[in-house]
Amino acid sequence: LGLLDGSLFDMKQEKLSELALLEHTPASAFGSCRYRLASFEEDESNYKKILDTFKKFDIRYFFYIGGNDSMDTCMQISRYCEHVGYDCRVIGVPKTIDNDLVGTDHCPGYGSAAKYIATSVAEIALDLEVYRPSSVVVVEIMGRNAGWLAAASALANVGGRGPDLIYLPEVAFDIDRFTQEVADVYSKKGMCLVASSEGVRDGDGKFISQYSSNASGKRDAFGHIQMGGLAPTLTALIRDELKVKARGIELSLLQRCAAHCASQTDIDEACEAGRRAVSFAVEGKTAGMVSYIREGGDRYACGYALTPLEDVANLEKQVPREWINAQGNGVTEDFVKYALPLVQVMPEIPTENGLPRYARLKKNLAEK
Amino acid sequence: LGLLDGSLFDMKQEKLSELALLEHTPASAFGSCRYRLASFEEDESNYKKILDTFKKFDIRYFFYIGGNDSMDTCMQISRYCEHVGYDCRVIGVPKTIDNDLVGTDHCPGYGSAAKYIATSVAEIALDLEVYRPSSVVVVEIMGRNAGWLAAASALANVGGRGPDLIYLPEVAFDIDRFTQEVADVYSKKGMCLVASSEGVRDGDGKFISQYSSNASGKRDAFGHIQMGGLAPTLTALIRDELKVKARGIELSLLQRCAAHCASQTDIDEACEAGRRAVSFAVEGKTAGMVSYIREGGDRYACGYALTPLEDVANLEKQVPREWINAQGNGVTEDFVKYALPLVQVMPEIPTENGLPRYARLKKNLAEK
Repeated sequence: LGLLDGSLFDMKQEKLSELALLEHTPASAFGSCRYRLASFEEDESNYKKILDTFKKFDIRYFFYIGGNDSMDTCMQISRYCEHVGYDCRVIGVPKTIDNDLVGTDHCPGYGSAAKYIATSVAEIALDLEVYRPSSVVVVEIMGRNAGWLAAASALANVGGRGPDLIYLPEVAFDIDRFTQEVADVYSKKGMCLVASSEGVRDGDGKFISQYSSNASGKRDAFGHIQMGGLAPTLTALIRDELKVKARGIELSLLQRCAAHCASQTDIDEACEAGRRAVSFAVEGKTAGMVSYIREGGDRYACGYALTPLEDVANLEKQVPREWINAQGNGVTEDFVKYALPLVQVMPEIPTENGLPRYARLKKNLAEK
Repeated sequence: LGLLDGSLFDMKQEKLSELALLEHTPASAFGSCRYRLASFEEDESNYKKILDTFKKFDIRYFFYIGGNDSMDTCMQISRYCEHVGYDCRVIGVPKTIDNDLVGTDHCPGYGSAAKYIATSVAEIALDLEVYRPSSVVVVEIMGRNAGWLAAASALANVGGRGPDLIYLPEVAFDIDRFTQEVADVYSKKGMCLVASSEGVRDGDGKFISQYSSNASGKRDAFGHIQMGGLAPTLTALIRDELKVKARGIELSLLQRCAAHCASQTDIDEACEAGRRAVSFAVEGKTAGMVSYIREGGDRYACGYALTPLEDVANLEKQVPREWINAQGNGVTEDFVKYALPLVQVMPEIPTENGLPRYARLKKNLAEK
């Protein structure tokens, strides 16, 4: 959007010490947008505006940060530059906690979100042990189509306190089987901790979170039809069917912005991904996305490569079925081996007044 | 409950290294209960069981950890020991994130919960800045009668990113005034971050969170009447009245168990409160609760005293009205001065596999 209306932030006006803090600062410091560019063959008008901005500021290197939609935008811009003969290196830099990009072992952001989720779920598990009889807790985790984030809750089990049952969108969700599985755990342990992707759906592809909005006349005090959400839907079911206490917890926005519980491994790799993007561009490469390559051997190591944007854009990587257990209510040791290295090392968060000190940017617009 | 049926954990069987980890481990490691003892004048049967257990194990020092209800239990047991001439020192050790005990400057647990809340709200504020137009977010925070936890969200403003509006149970909540205040912030900033105690209520004392359960026929897919919760009630109102995007976030259980974001000041003081409890008992003191005294001067320092249980039990301390601003939608500088020292110093959390390593106790029962 900044390219479309020629509004660019002038980073040279920022203090270096503030820019350094970005490493530990949550959210997109430059803002973000959800704006899908049609191809230039369909509609050239936006591309002309972008080219104007490129020319106005003599931009010859363009880096675009995001997930699979953003990689499509990046590819379209790259194609257009080539089409009009404007010399510009266009590089995609991956970033999505959803971890659903193809062509890369994992995505910047995932390790930190995974760490926050595993840590929070472990803490909830400890809280659940306090009272007897205890209750059923359903933790609702982001992920409409891919279960990477909910699967990360399994890392809490490595420390001995984690979810009893994990449900991902990769496996069809059956309400009756779910109820039975919760009942089995509860009768054994006197408690049950469930972690589920928000996007679980039944065999017909219908989101379970939308079951409750079926109820006729379900309106709030202000006359609005209320969307159920997954956790309220499942906890209502459990209370109804099993007659036990049930509580839903939505990790909500915090799973994507809780930088105080980030993975230093993720931060280091993300910074390196940015550096590699610049190196690739300077070497003359273009139309690619920086990708992570897991280097073989027992010890985890991350390498970097450039993957053609057309191999990445608009595709979605799900959790492989073989990393989900046969019953479809947990993950395998192979998933844990995959994810555990990504959450390593607690970051040293700069603080001020005892609270995390996040970057404060001026974000002055560049003049031309 | 353990005293009633003679089930005590034998701490001598625990490894010292695991006990040391308790400092950083969330939740009550020994379990907890919500069980109210009638006075022995009303019903002596439970007290006889407790006395049996005391005698069986020759217990002469009894420490009871909790909030105002627990201090009542502690007082009743102390009175009974005196009544029957059983020589036992009975000391209450405060612990409640609600921070609502009288007779103490603040309560063990509050500083850590306050830190988690302030940190999380700051991160949500940063997340809200990413998209324009942005939205309204309502963060629902624990506190039925006292607003200490929601007030702590104001600490995020010290770092420049915090809630625009804060609502506490200490001030009557007016739906129309609230809507107008959100509208004013939103029209100025294009976003609005609200932090509210779950327990806010209107001028008639009715909980706002129960407004939505008024709606006739509001049942979920399984035929249950659904309780609204505060955040869903307020966000539905905002969507309806202001026609803007609104999202509710309930900090839920995590605000009481997110030990990964604890305050080391709180941890140190809590450990010291336990040590002082032992010292007081060994000195022959009884029937008191360890309390924190804020020592004068500009530099924060915490002293310790013993306050008679009868001055503490069953009473509740609210946020003073003069620490809430005139409009009733924020807190004053005096509150910040009170709370900020309590959240100081990031703890060094012991880790294993990159995740917090919490204590694992055997909890073997003591034999007699």
